[in-house]
Amino acid sequence: MGKQDVGITVSKEEDFSEWYTQVVLKAKLADYAPVKGLIVLRPDGYSIWESLRSTFDKKFARNGIRNGFLPILIPESLLGKEQKHFAGFNPEVFWVTHSGTNEVGDRLALRPTSETLAYTLYSKWIQSWRDLPLKINFWNTALRAEIKATKPFLRTSEFLWQEGHTVHSTKEEAEKEVIKILDIYKNTVEEELAIPVTTGKKSEKEKFVGAEYTTTMESIMPDGKALQMGTSHFLAQNFSKPFEVKFADKDNVEHFAWQTSWGVSWRLIGAMIMAHGDDKGLVLPPKVAPMQVVIVPIYKNDNDKENVITKVNEIANILELKNIRIHVDSREELTPGYKFNDWELKGVPLRIEIGPKDIENQSMVLAKRYNHEKMKMGLNEVENIITILDEIQTEMLKKARTEAADNTIDIENYDEFKMKMEKGGFFNSPWCGKLDCEEKIKEETGAEIRVIPFNSENTSKKCIYCKQQSTSVPIFARGY
Amino acid sequence: MGKQDVGITVSKEEDFSEWYTQVVLKAKLADYAPVKGLIVLRPDGYSIWESLRSTFDKKFARNGIRNGFLPILIPESLLGKEQKHFAGFNPEVFWVTHSGTNEVGDRLALRPTSETLAYTLYSKWIQSWRDLPLKINFWNTALRAEIKATKPFLRTSEFLWQEGHTVHSTKEEAEKEVIKILDIYKNTVEEELAIPVTTGKKSEKEKFVGAEYTTTMESIMPDGKALQMGTSHFLAQNFSKPFEVKFADKDNVEHFAWQTSWGVSWRLIGAMIMAHGDDKGLVLPPKVAPMQVVIVPIYKNDNDKENVITKVNEIANILELKNIRIHVDSREELTPGYKFNDWELKGVPLRIEIGPKDIENQSMVLAKRYNHEKMKMGLNEVENIITILDEIQTEMLKKARTEAADNTIDIENYDEFKMKMEKGGFFNSPWCGKLDCEEKIKEETGAEIRVIPFNSENTSKKCIYCKQQSTSVPIFARGY
Repeated sequence: MGKQDVGITVSKEEDFSEWYTQVVLKAKLADYAPVKGLIVLRPDGYSIWESLRSTFDKKFARNGIRNGFLPILIPESLLGKEQKHFAGFNPEVFWVTHSGTNEVGDRLALRPTSETLAYTLYSKWIQSWRDLPLKINFWNTALRAEIKATKPFLRTSEFLWQEGHTVHSTKEEAEKEVIKILDIYKNTVEEELAIPVTTGKKSEKEKFVGAEYTTTMESIMPDGKALQMGTSHFLAQNFSKPFEVKFADKDNVEHFAWQTSWGVSWRLIGAMIMAHGDDKGLVLPPKVAPMQVVIVPIYKNDNDKENVITKVNEIANILELKNIRIHVDSREELTPGYKFNDWELKGVPLRIEIGPKDIENQSMVLAKRYNHEKMKMGLNEVENIITILDEIQTEMLKKARTEAADNTIDIENYDEFKMKMEKGGFFNSPWCGKLDCEEKIKEETGAEIRVIPFNSENTSKKCIYCKQQSTSVPIFARGY
Repeated sequence: MGKQDVGITVSKEEDFSEWYTQVVLKAKLADYAPVKGLIVLRPDGYSIWESLRSTFDKKFARNGIRNGFLPILIPESLLGKEQKHFAGFNPEVFWVTHSGTNEVGDRLALRPTSETLAYTLYSKWIQSWRDLPLKINFWNTALRAEIKATKPFLRTSEFLWQEGHTVHSTKEEAEKEVIKILDIYKNTVEEELAIPVTTGKKSEKEKFVGAEYTTTMESIMPDGKALQMGTSHFLAQNFSKPFEVKFADKDNVEHFAWQTSWGVSWRLIGAMIMAHGDDKGLVLPPKVAPMQVVIVPIYKNDNDKENVITKVNEIANILELKNIRIHVDSREELTPGYKFNDWELKGVPLRIEIGPKDIENQSMVLAKRYNHEKMKMGLNEVENIITILDEIQTEMLKKARTEAADNTIDIENYDEFKMKMEKGGFFNSPWCGKLDCEEKIKEETGAEIRVIPFNSENTSKKCIYCKQQSTSVPIFARGY
């Protein structure tokens, strides 16, 4: 197998889309399934999802949220109970019509999202104030038929996600929950995936169908497009009324409950690939890397080999005891150069090279994946590797912040907006709040309101489109 | 809410089936979904599944198995590629025919199991001996339309499970893997769920459709029926040939690979409920209990209350630091008696009662759920609670072993077999190995060959049915 077979053959700069696909497939994160729109996760890809799930689970638990399980089939009649919601999802729904050779009566939808199912059950489970708050999260997949070309993690007809559904006795408590969740999302994405996000509200046009309002976190990708990284919805009583999610208060008076729902999907993995990858392949943040450190032993003859392998295993053992996910690449018949390329392609955050010369000098060579920096370190300083991994994690976020800032501009002139939007970017531009302007801008430039950042409201500026008094300064961008 | 609303209203002895359903629903493990055959897991039920998953994951990882993700939709043409396999599942398959208003071309099956999909991918991923063994596990759900009445965890049209799929270069290695997995299954079920199992092979008639042979673990339930607790299949080259799962060996000669597949489902939770529950409700083994210890503070006036609550919180903090999953039931307006019943219904392994008298005597009352034993313990001995939980776990398995042994008999006389089978049980009876006898026995008694225990082969006895030379002594029983 030559180098050409495994390496990425296009540059990120030249053909971002092809570069992305090659990284996903060649780093063995995912592959296409036989059905258009569907993908498979290979262990290295799924492991990143498991790592995120475990971090979210800990944070959810601390916030009193527990996990549950919902079946995948929802009867058509139930899905249709909240009408706007149904209309929003209907064109994308997969329908089951038969089991074996029998026709099913009411057609069954593969869940596009579980509000209708969850709240049917919640209405049974909740009777009094004692049953509130009820906060359950579900790790599952959702299915929404995708007609455009499949893009792993970003555009697939089935996707891994979590959907959380909470019920509260007061409006205030529910709204607080919406923000608490958005905070968990933000700090997890920034700390684990090293991707900066901007949080705020969606416009009325872009909000979740059925929600009172939607809060969102958005990131800008290196190609200048925006990616929605997660949303947390305030449902108010929009679902509790049709689904009769009611509770008796301490005075035994019945009220409709206040609800939230929220989710992040494996799209976060797609964002991570785009944000950090380079022309050599994937670049993984240490916290989510299935393999954090790879050691490549270097030797030319059997005598050297024994010495080197002994030392390498010694180092590996020390790191393993420190809970570092480490691998020794002891494959025979492959050159160190081949191995370097291979692990760079797979994005391993830190590579250690140890050869006979290094052992003589009581040192080893470290190579950081994210910036290709090489450094020497004493063999007796191996415990510092924990610190170096932490530093890499921090530096990657810092680098990503700088790149995001470089791609973000304040624009109040519409001609400039139109011209510059051709190259993409996050544009902070004042807006009057009217749907009409929002739609015209979308039509003329392809840019949508991605997020109205918190604290960007009540400005004294003029709407970039109609020049009327603006009500906020949203981020406009083209999306995926 | 009175006691009658929450308690179990039938005895396990009198109406096992109704007792089971009441326990599942009233202990809030699960509930019925709006579609017949489907259930929902509430947090206490899902938590048990999470605990099992985490134990299996650790053991799988130690055995070089990693997790992946497969989509739920499999095209009909692919599912039909191994014909016997397809014929076996076809009547139970849910079919997707539309997405939105569009007809899908090839109908899409909701996975009844993923062999066909996984091996299509494996054939792409495996080229040479370097790629083997390939061992991937998938935590997902499978869907098989169930026409009989829904029984949570035992008979549902969608069920949570894991399916593992491994590929090996030699027959020997694959067969070893089959047994390694069965061992992991056995020790996990016995150690975590405190349920004894018997391992061995399925008969030709009962094996997995497409397998060369199926190994299984079976348990006897308190109603005398057998439950299949998990299976591990040796697929030989039955799938690698139609799916072209091939590898080049070191001499670059191509071979078809040797494969295994294996799975356990949430049925294990059903077994746990049946094996340990009693007339007061659920009884949870400490290792998988979402809540291991509940403390009920007892007081009559505000003065006592403050003292008691302070002491209770102190004890709770100590236990929490020891990683014991503890809860303090500080609900107002509910009597201690009501609380006792409530936690007994929910199966919490150990209850601690602390009142003013106990504090005076520097002691507390412990009540074990599984055998209703009450004991006193010094307040300063609180750390012993870890040992007590371990003991409960061990004692529960011991108790279950005794019960299983009581329900297992050696029978060589067919008249006795027929008569006694009316009451159920595990019957060790010699068998000639012929399908005809197996089918006649099933027809006349309702009993199937559940498992041919390892080391039960090559006997010198006579077949219980035809009186010819027997080849093994299988366990016959009626199943779920």
